[in-house]
Amino acid sequence: MKNVSFQGEHGAYSESAARVFFGKDITTKPYPTFKEALESTIDGTSDYAVLPVENSIEGSVGESYDLLYSTSLFAIGEVYKKIEHCLIGTGELSSIDTVYSHPQALGQCRKFLQDNKLKTVPTYDTAGSVKIIKDMGKDSVACIASKSASEIYQIKIIKEGIADNPNNYTRFLVLSKKETQEVKNAKTSIIFSIKHEPGALFRIIEKFHTSGINLTKIESRPKKDSIWEYNFFVDFEGSKSDSKVSDALKKIKEETLFFKILGSYTAASLN
Amino acid sequence: MKNVSFQGEHGAYSESAARVFFGKDITTKPYPTFKEALESTIDGTSDYAVLPVENSIEGSVGESYDLLYSTSLFAIGEVYKKIEHCLIGTGELSSIDTVYSHPQALGQCRKFLQDNKLKTVPTYDTAGSVKIIKDMGKDSVACIASKSASEIYQIKIIKEGIADNPNNYTRFLVLSKKETQEVKNAKTSIIFSIKHEPGALFRIIEKFHTSGINLTKIESRPKKDSIWEYNFFVDFEGSKSDSKVSDALKKIKEETLFFKILGSYTAASLN
Repeated sequence: MKNVSFQGEHGAYSESAARVFFGKDITTKPYPTFKEALESTIDGTSDYAVLPVENSIEGSVGESYDLLYSTSLFAIGEVYKKIEHCLIGTGELSSIDTVYSHPQALGQCRKFLQDNKLKTVPTYDTAGSVKIIKDMGKDSVACIASKSASEIYQIKIIKEGIADNPNNYTRFLVLSKKETQEVKNAKTSIIFSIKHEPGALFRIIEKFHTSGINLTKIESRPKKDSIWEYNFFVDFEGSKSDSKVSDALKKIKEETLFFKILGSYTAASLN
Repeated sequence: MKNVSFQGEHGAYSESAARVFFGKDITTKPYPTFKEALESTIDGTSDYAVLPVENSIEGSVGESYDLLYSTSLFAIGEVYKKIEHCLIGTGELSSIDTVYSHPQALGQCRKFLQDNKLKTVPTYDTAGSVKIIKDMGKDSVACIASKSASEIYQIKIIKEGIADNPNNYTRFLVLSKKETQEVKNAKTSIIFSIKHEPGALFRIIEKFHTSGINLTKIESRPKKDSIWEYNFFVDFEGSKSDSKVSDALKKIKEETLFFKILGSYTAASLN
């Protein structure tokens, strides 16, 4: 059976994403941090790690991008997971005065919380907030987390679908020590840094454009070792094994200071 | 005296940034959220709001960018504030076993915490963590926050400069109801969205390039109302009142679905 590492407590959205990608028949391994989840795949404790990289409302997960820059793992898949926040607790909506959850989840349910005049307490992760309110054992507190977290900790769902915006998806990358070879309907992720001079980024985007390669995402992240210089994280359509792509990447690499192909993988659809 | 709004408790890095920009002689007004800080400037309770937009280690502050998209305020200035994390508490380094702070601050001091085998508890903001440990009144707990937070809550600094990377700066925008007119050494911030079609972003970056305008930052953020479509936040050198800039922006606007000039302001230097 495949072992798949994720960050968070059992019931985390990352764990559900792993099951969407691999199916039910896997062993999931929770780790307190993204870094430890990836390290467990590097040292062979697990076969894969599932890492959230972007949310349709909140945007990119900066810490994940920094780990992708330094990791020796390859991206071998992507998966979208719909985020469906539930109000979870032992009481009823009328008995609750305080709601615990991660600040992002609280923010995504702001309207519901205001309409019901509920106070909020920020916590470190959503599934962890179910643990907290279970330990408190009071009908006046509830938390916001996934349906699956409610099942795991056996605390009932008071209300489903409490997010302001139902279009709430997180994109995850699946990482492994082994690269993919041939993939269909491929996307490729690369990371590079460029000289700090006018037109440097333009010349690279121009090379993608003239090679007929469509970018699906461009993200800049500050470099850790120098102030206000950036690494770029670019996703595009096509596989590194396509000659059109490999020819373009050869030219692009010449314009960069740092260049790394994270991997090619089958593009996922929303589900 | 000028009233300046910021998010957080007194002693927050945002409050220090306001004093770097305006000098000591201002009245600072703390608000629990970024949104409330901006609203207080819109309704006239304050004259300005100071908003963190980017950190040299952690990257962009997503929530701030979303507020810039929807706000009626203008960017009239920018300021860089060096982030200098201190270990603050009533005990000594040898008596401490647990450290409270915002997850970003804990992450930025990871090496120090590991070397000293300290457990961590995440909190919602750095200055707020000083309040928490003051209320606890135990020599075994400490927190990570600014020197100024230590002074305000009168809890001593146990150790200064505990961050892994000393190149830690946050960039803030200063917002106001009134636009700037003529500014020297100007930078301009704009926000736009484009059609979801190949080459759309390329055509815009090309127009900046052929107009001889240097981009200093490009950031994409998901749109809230549709999945995986993006707004772009672009900073560049020059003022909206320069004819070179205004001519280029006229052409760029034609390629966009949404277009907004946030403001022109004097470029700040690191200090």
